Amino acid sequence: MIIDINCDMGESFGVYRIGEDEKIIPYISSANIACGYHAGDPLVMDRTVQLAKEHGVAVGAHPGFPDLLGYGRRMLETFPGEIRRYVLYQVGALAAFCRVNQVKLQHVKPHGALYNLAARDENTAREIIEAVMAYDPELILVALSGSRLAELGGSAGLKVAREVFPDRAYLADGRLAPRRLPGSVIQEVEQVRERVVRLITRGTLISIEGQEIELKADTFCLHGDTPGAWLLAKTIGEALSEAGIPIQPLSQNLFP
Amino acid sequence: MIIDINCDMGESFGVYRIGEDEKIIPYISSANIACGYHAGDPLVMDRTVQLAKEHGVAVGAHPGFPDLLGYGRRMLETFPGEIRRYVLYQVGALAAFCRVNQVKLQHVKPHGALYNLAARDENTAREIIEAVMAYDPELILVALSGSRLAELGGSAGLKVAREVFPDRAYLADGRLAPRRLPGSVIQEVEQVRERVVRLITRGTLISIEGQEIELKADTFCLHGDTPGAWLLAKTIGEALSEAGIPIQPLSQNLFP
Amino acid sequence: MIIDINCDMGESFGVYRIGEDEKIIPYISSANIACGYHAGDPLVMDRTVQLAKEHGVAVGAHPGFPDLLGYGRRMLETFPGEIRRYVLYQVGALAAFCRVNQVKLQHVKPHGALYNLAARDENTAREIIEAVMAYDPELILVALSGSRLAELGGSAGLKVAREVFPDRAYLADGRLAPRRLPGSVIQEVEQVRERVVRLITRGTLISIEGQEIELKADTFCLHGDTPGAWLLAKTIGEALSEAGIPIQPLSQNLFP
Amino acid sequence: MIIDINCDMGESFGVYRIGEDEKIIPYISSANIACGYHAGDPLVMDRTVQLAKEHGVAVGAHPGFPDLLGYGRRMLETFPGEIRRYVLYQVGALAAFCRVNQVKLQHVKPHGALYNLAARDENTAREIIEAVMAYDPELILVALSGSRLAELGGSAGLKVAREVFPDRAYLADGRLAPRRLPGSVIQEVEQVRERVVRLITRGTLISIEGQEIELKADTFCLHGDTPGAWLLAKTIGEALSEAGIPIQPLSQNLFP
Repeated sequence: MIIDINCDMGESFGVYRIGEDEKIIPYISSANIACGYHAGDPLVMDRTVQLAKEHGVAVGAHPGFPDLLGYGRRMLETFPGEIRRYVLYQVGALAAFCRVNQVKLQHVKPHGALYNLAARDENTAREIIEAVMAYDPELILVALSGSRLAELGGSAGLKVAREVFPDRAYLADGRLAPRRLPGSVIQEVEQVRERVVRLITRGTLISIEGQEIELKADTFCLHGDTPGAWLLAKTIGEALSEAGIPIQPLSQNLFP
Repeated sequence: MIIDINCDMGESFGVYRIGEDEKIIPYISSANIACGYHAGDPLVMDRTVQLAKEHGVAVGAHPGFPDLLGYGRRMLETFPGEIRRYVLYQVGALAAFCRVNQVKLQHVKPHGALYNLAARDENTAREIIEAVMAYDPELILVALSGSRLAELGGSAGLKVAREVFPDRAYLADGRLAPRRLPGSVIQEVEQVRERVVRLITRGTLISIEGQEIELKADTFCLHGDTPGAWLLAKTIGEALSEAGIPIQPLSQNLFP
Repeated sequence: MIIDINCDMGESFGVYRIGEDEKIIPYISSANIACGYHAGDPLVMDRTVQLAKEHGVAVGAHPGFPDLLGYGRRMLETFPGEIRRYVLYQVGALAAFCRVNQVKLQHVKPHGALYNLAARDENTAREIIEAVMAYDPELILVALSGSRLAELGGSAGLKVAREVFPDRAYLADGRLAPRRLPGSVIQEVEQVRERVVRLITRGTLISIEGQEIELKADTFCLHGDTPGAWLLAKTIGEALSEAGIPIQPLSQNLFP
Repeated sequence: MIIDINCDMGESFGVYRIGEDEKIIPYISSANIACGYHAGDPLVMDRTVQLAKEHGVAVGAHPGFPDLLGYGRRMLETFPGEIRRYVLYQVGALAAFCRVNQVKLQHVKPHGALYNLAARDENTAREIIEAVMAYDPELILVALSGSRLAELGGSAGLKVAREVFPDRAYLADGRLAPRRLPGSVIQEVEQVRERVVRLITRGTLISIEGQEIELKADTFCLHGDTPGAWLLAKTIGEALSEAGIPIQPLSQNLFP
């Protein structure tokens, strides 16, 4: 049993700093790097690709809606074909920094509102899938475990990595508990550690309602923009190490 | 003798339309496509790459300063390393649309204020050259004939295409006459036609002061954002055809 | 009987030109001027305020979503309080150009997706109303006739001008027919002219289903970004002139 | 003797936080609030105006170049008339938040590269002065002590507050020592404190070359975006208090 831990990175912009990329990177295996639409800029992208390379962390594109003001967290209505081109633009831009740093682009993971929309909306999911297929069908698509995006991506023949958020509560039907629900974000490190171990060893999670539910987890997402995120990452890393479960990029374990 | 004719294209943005790309494309051989910084957006980029493909026109990236409000025509101070990353970002973004449309990226030509700055400023020229070398040393760099960028690009081992503007007046020392000088833009079609023929057949131009000067021309640039630009393109195309001079992309004639 | 004719104006941006403001302004009485979020820039705003002043046309702010790429036509999710501040920001920016040109700011009319959302969504309507009330309770709020915004604005004590689009089809329930329906946009000038006259003289409109419906019209909106818009404006102006109905700004007739 | 202490504030943007506004505001008397061009957004602007109001701190507009990516610190070439409109737009936008919060707009202080350019370039200075004069000739213009902007603003009849940076070294001719010079930024709190006292009591400063130079100081600028800035503010506040020099907004002491 091997697991991947991913984290959103490179979300600084100009003089604005967000996230503790340098502190958290030793504990993860895949980095989702912002591409300049919801966050990130060319200098940050280049620096973050280099940081990932130095730590043997695999690189993915993290495209979002063109909404820096809202950090890509707000739903934006789009017309057919726009999302596909937005994803292509951002993947291509990041790929340039991979290329000049001799790093392989491993995966694509949509960000924020685009991620959430693709989890439930078929048209959005299809546009993302079409973009990835057209750009490079060998790229891994990281999608919420149990989502439309994961399902449709798999049907389309893409390599799909099912993502679970160990510090987020889930509903009994396997969907993420909305952030407005009390207890939707789990802040106690020990509890998150337990959830990770249970997910890996038993493939289950205790839902917010208290039921044990099954959830496929190919990769765990850690949030990098909360203070102390690196401590959570460290704790999880140690728990996995104790349990004898190696942390490796998706391209090495899931789709070698 | 073979010549390339290039034109800036894909400079529309959202609902905003600029240039008559569809009308002018039958008469050119290389298209410089805006990459979303000074102009262009993902939909326009995709559509323009397809338009170029349909007409057998070679595609180049046309990176500019991040200044949509100023259309990339205003000098922007940058800190060391910024221009290199700005160029990489934009080239990568356009390359994605080339890739999904199975079109080869032929060249890179900086836009507006970045073009002018690179023509005279060594640091700017070096950053652009480094970006192109690092991304793909087989890409052709289009630079003002006689400029620092052309000179340094050649020394660095890049394929450089020297560009001449047949509808712009030149000073006796080979530099472009500033736009503020009367007569700096030549609007009479017949006069432009004569300049093109003289440049190809004799390798010379009559400067704004009236002297005959030598100027190497591997590619002619036509402006697409002036009304009637396509008529000028048509006239030049016919003149070259009469003179038995084929119009072909740089990748077919200069660097086959 | 007196009527106001309004038109969206000042929607150019940088080198990008849209609309035929100069041609259409002789035929209208109120100008809705974009404020730099969905369109417009400081130079365009200043110039458009001056243009309106020269033609005795009243000036209104036309705030939209911060989405230049989508021209403010795409729904953007916002968090509570955002729309209120977006409106304040834009109204204040335009007010500066009114101030330096000694022009009174007459009205506020939301643009595009914000307009449509405010027509049906109470929270959006309330934020816009709060912004206008707080900034200047004497400002006229231009809202779709029969909309939530018109209703709530009136209840809140604002001066509300009910707007009708004579070149758009309406459903039997008084709502605008969606643009995807065939016949939703009426392009025949003569037909638009008839609708204007019927609205003024009888206060009714023939719905897309063929029924005669009542609709209060304090101001007619003409679209300025369609080619030939000025011709429609001219025709309507002449029809009103023949019918002896003066065209005057809202601040002169409705709320003197 | 009374002095004003000003600080740049409200430079956060969306989720991005910069500066310790809440910590530093108890120690200053005037706040320069970013207006959405180089930094700031409508929510931040509203919140910062309220913060200033709560602390009895006077509010000023802090307009910059439209360059969020460069934080307004990079020179941007502009065409005649652009700077004037950029300033008007930003002042008007901030004025809206002053208005709804019942706060008087006290001053205008250009930001970053625009500030530096206006200090030496006459055209830039004139455009800023024209904007302020046209918008409200009672507004105070904050300008670098000894600069062209200060000089021309005074000649034009504006109320000018001459600004000194106590934590920046000065050349013997009274200009700011460039940041690239060693010792150009004074980080030792005690040394800054001494400079403030000398400036107030003797009207002089020791230049980076060691000479005592005269410098008029109506207002001291503290930097808010360096960690620990509030501590410096506190120290200076205490030093002034010990020396019996009250800290008050410009509108209360200099131009009552």
